[in-house]
Amino acid sequence: MNKTLRTLTFLFLLLLSAKLSSAQNKIVVFQSDFGLKDGAVSAMKGVAMGVSTDLKLYDLTHEIPAYNIWEASYRLEQTVRYWPAGTVFVSVVDPGVGTTRKSVVLKTKSGQYIVTPNNGTLTLVAQSLGIDEIREINEAVNRRKDSQKSYTFHGRDVYAYTAARLAAGAITFEQVGPLLPKQVVSIPYQQAVMDGKILKGNIPVLDVQYGNVWTNIPDTLFKQLGPKYGDVVHVSIFHKNKQVYKGDMPYTQTFGAVAEGKPLAYLNSLLQVSFALNMGDFAKTYDVASGGEWSVEVSVN
Amino acid sequence: MNKTLRTLTFLFLLLLSAKLSSAQNKIVVFQSDFGLKDGAVSAMKGVAMGVSTDLKLYDLTHEIPAYNIWEASYRLEQTVRYWPAGTVFVSVVDPGVGTTRKSVVLKTKSGQYIVTPNNGTLTLVAQSLGIDEIREINEAVNRRKDSQKSYTFHGRDVYAYTAARLAAGAITFEQVGPLLPKQVVSIPYQQAVMDGKILKGNIPVLDVQYGNVWTNIPDTLFKQLGPKYGDVVHVSIFHKNKQVYKGDMPYTQTFGAVAEGKPLAYLNSLLQVSFALNMGDFAKTYDVASGGEWSVEVSVN
Amino acid sequence: MNKTLRTLTFLFLLLLSAKLSSAQNKIVVFQSDFGLKDGAVSAMKGVAMGVSTDLKLYDLTHEIPAYNIWEASYRLEQTVRYWPAGTVFVSVVDPGVGTTRKSVVLKTKSGQYIVTPNNGTLTLVAQSLGIDEIREINEAVNRRKDSQKSYTFHGRDVYAYTAARLAAGAITFEQVGPLLPKQVVSIPYQQAVMDGKILKGNIPVLDVQYGNVWTNIPDTLFKQLGPKYGDVVHVSIFHKNKQVYKGDMPYTQTFGAVAEGKPLAYLNSLLQVSFALNMGDFAKTYDVASGGEWSVEVSVN
Repeated sequence: MNKTLRTLTFLFLLLLSAKLSSAQNKIVVFQSDFGLKDGAVSAMKGVAMGVSTDLKLYDLTHEIPAYNIWEASYRLEQTVRYWPAGTVFVSVVDPGVGTTRKSVVLKTKSGQYIVTPNNGTLTLVAQSLGIDEIREINEAVNRRKDSQKSYTFHGRDVYAYTAARLAAGAITFEQVGPLLPKQVVSIPYQQAVMDGKILKGNIPVLDVQYGNVWTNIPDTLFKQLGPKYGDVVHVSIFHKNKQVYKGDMPYTQTFGAVAEGKPLAYLNSLLQVSFALNMGDFAKTYDVASGGEWSVEVSVN
Repeated sequence: MNKTLRTLTFLFLLLLSAKLSSAQNKIVVFQSDFGLKDGAVSAMKGVAMGVSTDLKLYDLTHEIPAYNIWEASYRLEQTVRYWPAGTVFVSVVDPGVGTTRKSVVLKTKSGQYIVTPNNGTLTLVAQSLGIDEIREINEAVNRRKDSQKSYTFHGRDVYAYTAARLAAGAITFEQVGPLLPKQVVSIPYQQAVMDGKILKGNIPVLDVQYGNVWTNIPDTLFKQLGPKYGDVVHVSIFHKNKQVYKGDMPYTQTFGAVAEGKPLAYLNSLLQVSFALNMGDFAKTYDVASGGEWSVEVSVN
Repeated sequence: MNKTLRTLTFLFLLLLSAKLSSAQNKIVVFQSDFGLKDGAVSAMKGVAMGVSTDLKLYDLTHEIPAYNIWEASYRLEQTVRYWPAGTVFVSVVDPGVGTTRKSVVLKTKSGQYIVTPNNGTLTLVAQSLGIDEIREINEAVNRRKDSQKSYTFHGRDVYAYTAARLAAGAITFEQVGPLLPKQVVSIPYQQAVMDGKILKGNIPVLDVQYGNVWTNIPDTLFKQLGPKYGDVVHVSIFHKNKQVYKGDMPYTQTFGAVAEGKPLAYLNSLLQVSFALNMGDFAKTYDVASGGEWSVEVSVN
């Protein structure tokens, strides 16, 4: 009798532990420059489902401009922090596929994992979220079976496969491969600085859907200028040091604080200084783009 | 012994109830005008996953034209009814972000929830599915922690967060906030009416992928004209009362009933009178668009 | 006492079986030419969720060019094999909706299901993965309730509904409908052949995001030419037998093996002969497209 009860209790514990282990994260988030017109993204997800149908697969974006590592880095910066610890990101923007760039998995200090070629994609996240550990993927073991003949789809055969196994708990982080020094391949860019009473920074990205211009100048630096809502902000925008735009606009809490078509300065959802036209497209109107070659100067009087 | 059995039974019931509660809906469906090129949609989903990794996150569309509240309303009208009761929709088309428009959750009489700014987005669903209850979001409590400094991303910090907590059962509908009167901010538009032997209506939307023209005239009204398949339908299309198109076409059950490139009238999947060119693009060919300014007249002889 | 234990054991087995049955595949993958701008894809998913909220819904692509059955067939060919056995695909590219084309479910020899109009969409998958069984959908029973009045959205009312019920185990494959002969409606196209020392084939598809040109010539045929990395490949491309491109390029393992902007021949992720410009767009540069009318000739030395 006691034996039967022990067996039952054992079975209970087994079920409970299955329940608990199913409370693991198991989320994989995909980013690439593949677009959504062909089957490449779906093939990656199929491979992940082949590892475990319990995984939950989501997308960051697949509309990174082809080969644009900087933008891949920025989209991770914009997004990774909002996902819970334990989430595994896969980022495949990989102009160097087949060359000697290393395939790595970075674990941020906030607990998210990023599976990617170490080609600059990790530039911004490594700086902002910090590197807990970074490991090189041992492709001898972390590679989809029977994929050795194919040289061009690491996204599917190595990155999606490794991410899925890590997220599903089929491998530990240690089993990804050997530890690397805590540094990543980084793309140089102009930092946000205070120069006298002028803030200098760059335009890492546009808010593409609306044409708003985002800078890398944080609210903490901007606040040192002592701006109040309604104050006039002087803005200059440069491309390779050539002035492209110069204008004044109020610092506002809402877009509706100015008339339609009028410019305003505001803090975006990452609390960085940004410029917009209410109900309009600032970037298109003034021919402004983003990237390391674009810089801004901001002052408040 | 009896005690052991009672304990076991209690554990069983616990497991069963966990099983049953996991049979709850837990679905969140997102709509916005953010597009899919940046990280905004993914950040909203990350916040939802941070609430509960058991949620199932899907999309309606993120390609609503920027600030187009009418189209947001139409896409909900086209879709909400096909999802099971208990599904929570998030719609973020919000030109008035930061102004005094209220953030609300509407529960339809068919049991779906819609989390959105009350700015016209609810116009069509409130009419067609009915309002069971509508509550204002109490942002003092229903707001992502540490998001108070950010004024411009309600979609992530309030709407996605509140929708996720509601869908996951972390809050009840009552805990969203106080009840509002059963009415929503509505966009005026021309209703479908019978005027003698002529049906009048408007063009709420195009079937954009194919260029078919959809009207708001339901089959029930159209049937009063007594149309049979093959009958000639007289169609006039107006933009701000100026005639843009006038033509005759057969009422058909299938696109293949007319030659390639020829026009036809049919009932679309919402059983509304619609116009198409077989294998062609009616809207582009005749320069027809959608919105409150577009109207049609239809008769059958 | 024994009875109590038997009851408990029965309950255990019930829970375990629920656990095991939840280990079923339950995945549905959607493809269409609907695009993502309106609510059509979401309505299909809503219907599937109405069948069972345990289903996991993913996308192949919804950007198939309107009515392009050939490309629908190719995207399935590119993708289906990477998803685990038991996955149910829904493909709705259906210019003949409402005509007499049959609605079918094909089970491949590798165990995936494809729910689709039998209009050519199954051409390539039937050849490559093989037909285990093919059944005609009995629409009298496999049709969303109350959808009989609508003639134009089979994707939602028949295909998504039937796929969801099959994936969820609500119906068996047999209950889809009667067996059909093991053959599908097929689109004719030029096979890959060796003609003396020249390989002939066609261009089934472009790698649209990058502008790479993919052929249907497999590595096994290409290897008969004895190519080594670095060898010169002679390539001619024809549209309706008229020469569009003629050039030489090295056979390489990586894109980086040639200078930026230079052409190369490589094996794509499906191990088929392909052409690219390193960091460039081959198809746009040389005005090359895909489809049955496009053919290539390849030789090495």
